[in-house]
Amino acid sequence: MSVKTGKRTIRLTNKIGIISTAGVAGHKESDGPLADYFDSTYNDDMLGQSSWEKAESRLQTDAARLALNKVNLSTDDIDVILAGDLLNQCISSTFGLRSLGIPYLGQYGACSTMAQTMLIASLLTDSGACRRAMAVTSSHFCSAERQFRLPIEYGGQRTPTAQWTVTGAGAAVIDNSGSGSLIKEVTIGKITDYKIKDANNMGAAMAPAAADTIMSFLDDSKTTPSDYDLVLTGDLGFIGSELLIKILHREGIDISSVHNDCGKMIFDRDRQDVHAGGSGCGCCGSVFCSYIAGKLKKHELNNILFIATGALMSPTSSQQGESIPGIAHLLHIVSGIS
Amino acid sequence: MSVKTGKRTIRLTNKIGIISTAGVAGHKESDGPLADYFDSTYNDDMLGQSSWEKAESRLQTDAARLALNKVNLSTDDIDVILAGDLLNQCISSTFGLRSLGIPYLGQYGACSTMAQTMLIASLLTDSGACRRAMAVTSSHFCSAERQFRLPIEYGGQRTPTAQWTVTGAGAAVIDNSGSGSLIKEVTIGKITDYKIKDANNMGAAMAPAAADTIMSFLDDSKTTPSDYDLVLTGDLGFIGSELLIKILHREGIDISSVHNDCGKMIFDRDRQDVHAGGSGCGCCGSVFCSYIAGKLKKHELNNILFIATGALMSPTSSQQGESIPGIAHLLHIVSGIS
Repeated sequence: MSVKTGKRTIRLTNKIGIISTAGVAGHKESDGPLADYFDSTYNDDMLGQSSWEKAESRLQTDAARLALNKVNLSTDDIDVILAGDLLNQCISSTFGLRSLGIPYLGQYGACSTMAQTMLIASLLTDSGACRRAMAVTSSHFCSAERQFRLPIEYGGQRTPTAQWTVTGAGAAVIDNSGSGSLIKEVTIGKITDYKIKDANNMGAAMAPAAADTIMSFLDDSKTTPSDYDLVLTGDLGFIGSELLIKILHREGIDISSVHNDCGKMIFDRDRQDVHAGGSGCGCCGSVFCSYIAGKLKKHELNNILFIATGALMSPTSSQQGESIPGIAHLLHIVSGIS
Repeated sequence: MSVKTGKRTIRLTNKIGIISTAGVAGHKESDGPLADYFDSTYNDDMLGQSSWEKAESRLQTDAARLALNKVNLSTDDIDVILAGDLLNQCISSTFGLRSLGIPYLGQYGACSTMAQTMLIASLLTDSGACRRAMAVTSSHFCSAERQFRLPIEYGGQRTPTAQWTVTGAGAAVIDNSGSGSLIKEVTIGKITDYKIKDANNMGAAMAPAAADTIMSFLDDSKTTPSDYDLVLTGDLGFIGSELLIKILHREGIDISSVHNDCGKMIFDRDRQDVHAGGSGCGCCGSVFCSYIAGKLKKHELNNILFIATGALMSPTSSQQGESIPGIAHLLHIVSGIS
């Protein structure tokens, strides 16, 4: 059973835990600062497949299977899988998870998908609708570039505000056994539109959504940023993160000392030429499900807010003059009993 | 609180009701057999907008607002909206529902979206995660044709197995007040792949998924098709429906006397030149949320299974030689207290 707390936050009343996670990442990501934390990395971003889209599907298959294997679970032990990605009609998820044979609810939250899938998985587990649920997402630099921007072969110049889509995936297994890091509360995001139209500055488009969700949660929970070890967003990158801090500062909220962003963490900005940082569902998917989940497990982090942000646009909507609405979903997670 | 019944079915323990619905439809649909049942129809399928995609967004806005108005609710009365559509990155939902300012969870279930959104909305309401939820979906013939098939202006020949994407939308408001038609049980679909590759025969691609979900539900609930007034699928059309009946017949299950399909109901096959019938999220969205919801309300239907089916493909996956996996989500709905 879940209980509404304040205006928008939902408190879970059972001990809903993230009992296993796996984060996998591509070649460039495995050359970055989090290289040692990923559960699997690939030298060849084709993953032995015949297309980038099929390679991205494979990232999801691998992340899902690794997360299950870590806790000796089979696909029959999972009642429902929630997954989504950036590709048209979410084909990475469909084809990546098809072989598992698990009841499936496809999600579309753009880069907010890791939080959205974990959020719904935690609520369905808390209610008894399922014993155990799984949340999965992915992105792939090459499949995203050609779909959203330009053919890779064109070698287009990237603007300084552009983020680098991460080749990676994350998978999390959630149940009500009381094990693992516990999901205490969640806040569902609203579609937030500050009329940003620059598709090469997603961070700016998504920062207002993150600010809105964080303010709602702090208000509902009557807490302040200093109550948390980490306020982790994904994936605002360098520009969006700065903007988020500024927006919240204007509202009298200072997250600067506890904030970090998956898009800032996954690459070495000085060395890896990624401009405004990492992005894509697989960015916070892989970072949360490897590095962050590990820190929670080892009690190096004990009380965090995880807010994944998404830009709800398509090339068609941008070509038709539409702005880029953002969304951000939040989970309040505490480390489990050691 | 929800309870798992059998292998895959979830029983809702509170009185979760569909308290309001609205179905809107385009010009061709308003010339069909269900014309009198739609809450709103449009003479111009552009709906006064500058693009088909924007027109499709408008269908969702209208359906959502109509469903709220019928029961004198404002957007503040809704805790979460679940919506999705067929367009890349689900832009009809984002831009159609942006103005409502309701916490939003984007869904991707292709043409199964009406059932998927209602299913999750009912579970979140049953658990207490929200007081009141909304489920919305849409499709538009012109935006779908140019994205999935050919430019409209090309005037391509349609194959006899092709279905006609419905211009329409459906919206349902779900809460735990005990009013309205009640959602008793739900079954989440599995990705089912019989290796169909013909993108002009979606009915055949989706029928095995419908069969799988129906068999699971009947098994879990220990009921037979004759226990129900109607086993309503959407949107298999004429060819997929025939195939579904055959697949189930082979398994010793006879649905022929209680089965109908939204894709068969929305157009007059003899007069409207739609080949294998209607399809698209907006087909069962508009049919369920107008005609069927009305029949439940008037007790002309009392005990039904609603199974919406989706084809989880994209033009890219088909171009890369992939088959078309299907999915089908089921709701068991009974008419409320009169």
